[in-house]
Parts: sequence; C-alpha cells; structure tokens
Amino acid sequence: MRLVNRQWVLRSHPHGWPEPGNWELVRTEAPSPGPGQVLLRALYLSVDPYMRGRISGRATYAPPVPLGGVMVGAAVAEVVQSDDPGFAAGDVVEHAGFGWQEYAVSDGRALRKVDPSLGPVSTALGVLGMNGLTAYFGLLDVCHPRPGETVVVSGAAGATGSIAGQIARIAGCRVVGIAGSARKVAWLTGDLGFDAAVDYKAAGDLRAALAKHCPDGIDCYFDNVGGPVTDAVLSLLALRARIAVCGQIALYNEADFAPVGPRELRYLIAKRARAEGFLVFDYGDRYGEGLARLSRWVRVGDLNYQETVYEGIDNVPQALIDMMGGENVGKMVVRVGD
Amino acid sequence: MRLVNRQWVLRSHPHGWPEPGNWELVRTEAPSPGPGQVLLRALYLSVDPYMRGRISGRATYAPPVPLGGVMVGAAVAEVVQSDDPGFAAGDVVEHAGFGWQEYAVSDGRALRKVDPSLGPVSTALGVLGMNGLTAYFGLLDVCHPRPGETVVVSGAAGATGSIAGQIARIAGCRVVGIAGSARKVAWLTGDLGFDAAVDYKAAGDLRAALAKHCPDGIDCYFDNVGGPVTDAVLSLLALRARIAVCGQIALYNEADFAPVGPRELRYLIAKRARAEGFLVFDYGDRYGEGLARLSRWVRVGDLNYQETVYEGIDNVPQALIDMMGGENVGKMVVRVGD
Repeated sequence: MRLVNRQWVLRSHPHGWPEPGNWELVRTEAPSPGPGQVLLRALYLSVDPYMRGRISGRATYAPPVPLGGVMVGAAVAEVVQSDDPGFAAGDVVEHAGFGWQEYAVSDGRALRKVDPSLGPVSTALGVLGMNGLTAYFGLLDVCHPRPGETVVVSGAAGATGSIAGQIARIAGCRVVGIAGSARKVAWLTGDLGFDAAVDYKAAGDLRAALAKHCPDGIDCYFDNVGGPVTDAVLSLLALRARIAVCGQIALYNEADFAPVGPRELRYLIAKRARAEGFLVFDYGDRYGEGLARLSRWVRVGDLNYQETVYEGIDNVPQALIDMMGGENVGKMVVRVGD
Repeated sequence: MRLVNRQWVLRSHPHGWPEPGNWELVRTEAPSPGPGQVLLRALYLSVDPYMRGRISGRATYAPPVPLGGVMVGAAVAEVVQSDDPGFAAGDVVEHAGFGWQEYAVSDGRALRKVDPSLGPVSTALGVLGMNGLTAYFGLLDVCHPRPGETVVVSGAAGATGSIAGQIARIAGCRVVGIAGSARKVAWLTGDLGFDAAVDYKAAGDLRAALAKHCPDGIDCYFDNVGGPVTDAVLSLLALRARIAVCGQIALYNEADFAPVGPRELRYLIAKRARAEGFLVFDYGDRYGEGLARLSRWVRVGDLNYQETVYEGIDNVPQALIDMMGGENVGKMVVRVGD
C-alpha cells in the first residue's frame, strides 16, 4: 500500500504579509523509513512566528526554506512504523523538523516521546513544548525576575507570552500583559491570574495605560512583538531593567527589511537597562528541567493554557497568517490527523 | 579683597544644536568658604556629551540645569583657601560638581586630590578621570572582552572612545575604531595602536568598510554615538555579542526628542546579543581600582592620550558645541586659569 503524502511547498517569498499562494499543496508518495528510522503520521502541525523568517529568502539564525522545498515546522505525530527499538507503532512523538506535511521519516534521535497522560498531545507543541520552554528560559534566565518586581509581557495572550506571564506570577512578580483584544485581556486577568492587562488596540495612549499599572516602572520586559508596543514599554523602564527580546512579530511582516521607529538603545543608558536576545535552542541541555517544572505547574493548576485549533492540512498557511494577525488565543495548531 | 567670579548661566533650552546664546556669562562675587569648606579657583573646565541632556529642560538620570542656574560641569581647580584640614592652599583637586565658573566653594568630600606627578593636571578630567573610568568599566565590566575577540568602538577618537579602544587592545582584542576624519583615523591606527579604523564620513558604505575589518563579526561594541553608525555595527554582530551603550551623541542634538531610525532590538535575537546601558557613577566604589590601573598603563606607555585645549572662560559654550561636532581629538578641556 502506497500512502499519499500532502506537503506544503514554498513557491514564492512574501513581500510584507504572506498569502496562502506563497505555498502550494502538492501530493507525493509518503517516504519509506530506512534502517533505524521511524515513519511518522502528523496529528498536529505547529505554526509559529519564527516561520516568517524562514520564508523570507534570507538567512537568519537558520537557513531559509528554499523555493520548492517543504515548509519547515514542528509536529506532534504518531509512529506508524518503526525500525528504532526505542519507538513502537502507536507512540506519540514531537518532532521539531517534521515540516508542513502528513508523513515524514525521522531518525529516532530527533524525536521526543509525548506522554498523553500529561494532557492533550497537542500541548507538546505549546505549553509543554517549544513555547513553554521559550517562556521558561527567556523569563527566568534572561530577565531574572525577583519577587515583587513588575514584569510586562507583550503578545501576552500568545502561545509564549501567556506562559511567560504566568511563570512571572509563579515567581512572585506583579504581571502586566499587553494584548490585542478585550477577550484576550479578560483571559489574562481572569484564568491566567495576571495582575493587569492592557488592550493596546483600544488603549489610545498605551504609555499612559501602562504607566497606570506600573507605578514603579517596569523591571522586566518579555518582548514578543517589538514596534510601537515596545516603544511604550521602553519609556517606562525601571532602574536596571532587563528585557528578554524573544520576538518582534510586529516587524516581521513589514515590507521594509529594516523597519523604522524611534531609536531604542537610547532608553537603556539612563536606566542602566539591559536588552538581550535569546533562542530556546541554546538551552537544549536543560529542556528536561524546563519540561519537568512546566508539567508540574500544569498538573497542580498553576499554569493554564488555551489552544486555537484549525482543522485540516488545507488550512495551515491561513493558520500561520491568522496567528501573526493575532486571531489566536494561546497556542495555534492545526489538526491534520486523528 | 573681593574676587570677581565669572559664571556661565543657562538662559534658554536649545532646540536641536545648542548655541552660545543659550548661556550668558555673568559676573558675580566669588563665594566665601564656610566652616570646613574650601575655596577653589578653576584651572581647567571639562566639556562632556552628558551636558546636552542637562540643558534640555527634561530630567534624565539627573535633574536638568534650571534656567538662570550655573551650568554644571567638572573642573580641575586649585585650592585658594581651606578650612578643611585635608586640603591646603595650592593643592590641585578635581571636582565633578564645580560648574562653568571661575571660583567655587566645596565640601572637601566632593574633591579628589590630583597628583601632578602623574601628568598634566588636566588629565584628571580625561584619561585619569571620568572618561578613563567610563571606558574602563564600560569596556571591562559591560562588554567583558576576551583575548582574540573583535571590539569596535564608535566615537573612537573622543575622550572616552580613545581610552576604551586602547583598553581593548591591552586586553588582547582586535580593535577597530570608527571616527570622523582622516586625521583621527591616523591617530587611532598610529599612536593608539588600533588594528584598524574607519572614517565614517568618507567610507561611503560604512557597513562594507567595517565588514572588511571584522571578518568574524563584532564581539563587543562600545557605543558612544548611536544613529547610523550603530546601525552598521548592529548588522555585523557576532554570536553572543555584547554592546556597552555609553552614549548616543549622534542623537542628542536632533530637534526631535525621539529620533527615528531602523529598529535596533531586532538585531539582538538571531545573534543572542546583549545591549546594556551604563553610567560610570554606579562604579564609584571602584574608582580607586580603575584609576590605579589607568595610571599605570599611562606610566608604562600602554595608554596614550591627547587633549584638545580651548583657552579662556569666554569659550566654554563653543568648546562644548565643537566637541559635540567632533572638532576635538581626545579630551576637550578649556583652560581658564594658570
């Protein structure tokens, strides 16, 4: 029996916002696993902001997806067939390099087993996966928050921001989220226990709205978005503030490769503040620590999450576009298999 | 005998570049020292980039100079009369809070004795004073350079940059300076021992010129200027680069309070780079360490310096303006007394 594999192939580089037509869904034959390999069937595909960099045609910290190549992306998948003694048919795994497709083969070393008893297996892409780990190391290792400090998170209702803010709460900080709708704000201050949240689209003067919630300034800033939201935060830094630069999604879809705005470094001097970029991959040797703590917080109810689930492989490009447009609450995934 | 004291008083806040008319030279009577106080006569007045912030009318990390107030600034001065047993008439001291004037009284605690055997007493305002210390702590404590790394210094022919680059050389780094004239470039690669220097005004494509001298990227950046020069550097950062944000003089005289340029934080992510603002005042408890090492390096000939000296209290505002315009090589001071 030959399996049909549908794959999203990159056809063109977007100029500004991507469109579904930048990719094409092609039908091929599913690959056959070689010696020691595992054949995987996708259950959930992940869409993430970093993907915008991969389709730009320019190298960032990773090579770009070539035109004609299968789009990159993580998946949770089921083992269909295994020639690796560590995996059996029916196992559920997370594979960061799966790609936007239905089937893939992999070396077992690239796979992480997912324990379905911890929650829906899709969480291995979010709170108990890359987003949770990004929030964990970015907040704790880059921001070094201390109890009582004021932590601001942008993109706070997103997959990573929603976890970063809750970890700050768990660390004893006062947490203020910035998000893009009343519904998101209600979720942050409700289920997620943020001390305050601001709807940047409705706030008018975002700086004034933030200042009200941060009377002693902002000690830590977990930045997912950049742009004008970050401008407002930078003007309210406390002495020796620490900024974890996780993402700048507000800039990724600007047609200009070098988006312009108020100069940012100047804010660092008077406050002796520090801004630091980071990538979760650098913490690979501590993923076990991070996942153990994240799992425990989820289990005891300290860490809440939500997922926005699109259905069907046809909708993966639209899911990415909608996620970058802020349509999601929490992690956006696409269910492509049962 | 009553001494006449000439003082520069702030009359208006500049919009953009300052003009001498923003200050007025007034004649008053020199103050009389009270119990425990010292009467000082200025020998050299310092002009420094931070002064631009003080005359803006806005608080930065320090309160602004009020209209009608004596302009702030450090001086090297001679003790005329002393009621403090620690100081005798004829002693030479450095006083950070002296102000743009000929005479001042001070509490002895605000004074640092200058040892004339270390070099011209004016160096207590530069290489053996605030500039040397700023370079020392900014480069060593904020950038943490390692031998063999590539260090770029902007404003490299200025009072602080010229020292920062030489400390990087002493630390075993490859040092590339950015300055604004052929004469400055020749000084950097000649007397100061920089490995390379670029004239940003003549370079055309500054990024390309820097890239040629920094084939492995830029590990440390000591930034005195900000603006387009810094844009070029940010695009060439090496992995885990460290940026010491010392000054942003390219921005200080823009009429717009929030000068616009390419977004800067975005460069930090892929390179996992860090930008940190600092102020030398935070290292007050380590000035002794810094001055001891700086003095030793000067003595053994590892650390060279140059001064640009203007004459007469009439010329202090123009000295400040010319320094911000890059007319100086090394430290700019104004000699106002013998």
